[in-house]
Amino acid sequence: MYSIEQFKEKIAKEFQIQFKNENYLKEALTHSSYANEHKDCKGIYNERIEFLGDAVLELFISNWLYRQMPTKKEGELTKLRAQIVCEESLSTLAKECELDKYLLLGKGERASKGHENPAVLCDVFEAFVGAIYLDQGFEGASQFLTQVIISKIKDGRFTLVGDFKTELQEYFQRNGNVNIRYELLKEEGPSHARYYTVQVHVNDKGYEIGEGKTKKAAEQLSARRTLEKLNVIS
Amino acid sequence: MYSIEQFKEKIAKEFQIQFKNENYLKEALTHSSYANEHKDCKGIYNERIEFLGDAVLELFISNWLYRQMPTKKEGELTKLRAQIVCEESLSTLAKECELDKYLLLGKGERASKGHENPAVLCDVFEAFVGAIYLDQGFEGASQFLTQVIISKIKDGRFTLVGDFKTELQEYFQRNGNVNIRYELLKEEGPSHARYYTVQVHVNDKGYEIGEGKTKKAAEQLSARRTLEKLNVIS
Repeated sequence: MYSIEQFKEKIAKEFQIQFKNENYLKEALTHSSYANEHKDCKGIYNERIEFLGDAVLELFISNWLYRQMPTKKEGELTKLRAQIVCEESLSTLAKECELDKYLLLGKGERASKGHENPAVLCDVFEAFVGAIYLDQGFEGASQFLTQVIISKIKDGRFTLVGDFKTELQEYFQRNGNVNIRYELLKEEGPSHARYYTVQVHVNDKGYEIGEGKTKKAAEQLSARRTLEKLNVIS
Repeated sequence: MYSIEQFKEKIAKEFQIQFKNENYLKEALTHSSYANEHKDCKGIYNERIEFLGDAVLELFISNWLYRQMPTKKEGELTKLRAQIVCEESLSTLAKECELDKYLLLGKGERASKGHENPAVLCDVFEAFVGAIYLDQGFEGASQFLTQVIISKIKDGRFTLVGDFKTELQEYFQRNGNVNIRYELLKEEGPSHARYYTVQVHVNDKGYEIGEGKTKKAAEQLSARRTLEKLNVIS
């Protein structure tokens, strides 16, 4: 079993978060099944702090989408947010942050592999976000989420692949019909580790270049860089 | 028709908010029906900023509930939040802030009394919160929401009447059975403007005193003050 001390060291190293009040961490890492078996938890487990973390995550992502997707309508923003803040992606993030190793589960829950259950993992990720918010404020939580979520969206490794392409299309379409084309400039490396370089052209004018391990990711990156160049997003 | 300038003056006076970028205010006060009729709006209306304001409100209330109701379970916090962040209360707040006067509606929407429509009012309130957040940060939005929402909850004039009483009960019940009693100390004033003074007793020990225009409000206040005295809430 890993200790809270070890977890504090880990997050200091990986996320540059120096926790002040470790009670918030304890609360976030304690599953109800564990609290039920241990009287010294005083009935404190991670559902309340998860309630808070969920709202922090929601605001953080809403703010990012509002600023990054200036032509998207409210309905589309809602859909995109749901793609990011979903059980599948949050449970993956929980594992990437190794929260499954530090999560305290009751005996029964552990036996039935609760630490691999996506719902349990999703909850502990949100609870951890809530703990950072309480200890470090919205700024601190934003820094963490930028590191673990936004970087992935920007790399096209997240669920939003294709959205910068759509955003670029919609940006240019506001002034009438437009022809957007992604040109494959290079394809290199062995078959198990191909690497693609792509340039986007709008009405035959060449814009930014992007690279990636898939054509889709390279196109995504070229679209994002073009939007940045045009000051549509930052 | 009222102008954005007048609105800026009003909110500077009432809420001590000095808006830096009035484009956010314009966006928040423009209904889609108005933007559809006015080309100079460039398709900008308040649904995107409402999407953001909704998340600001959600975090603000979640944070307040998490801190103020330390014994409430997640399910109860969710229920309480839904009571506060509901169409009925937000549309009332919109009217109290006179957002209905400043909201820009299209001709058809105005003719069908859109400025009295609770859904439209609720949206413009959330949009206004989004505008404050973008212009003044989470701190600025929190100050505004504390002034217009929290003060009402604390006075017992909001939908949460009774919750500090429940919270007090649950706080003491953690250590076994408890007898909580609210004693009416005074009842004064003419019948159309009665004023009540109440003291709460726990297992016959007298705690804090509360006053109010109804017995319920006075009890609520005495419970809140007792929770504050005991450092359960702040």
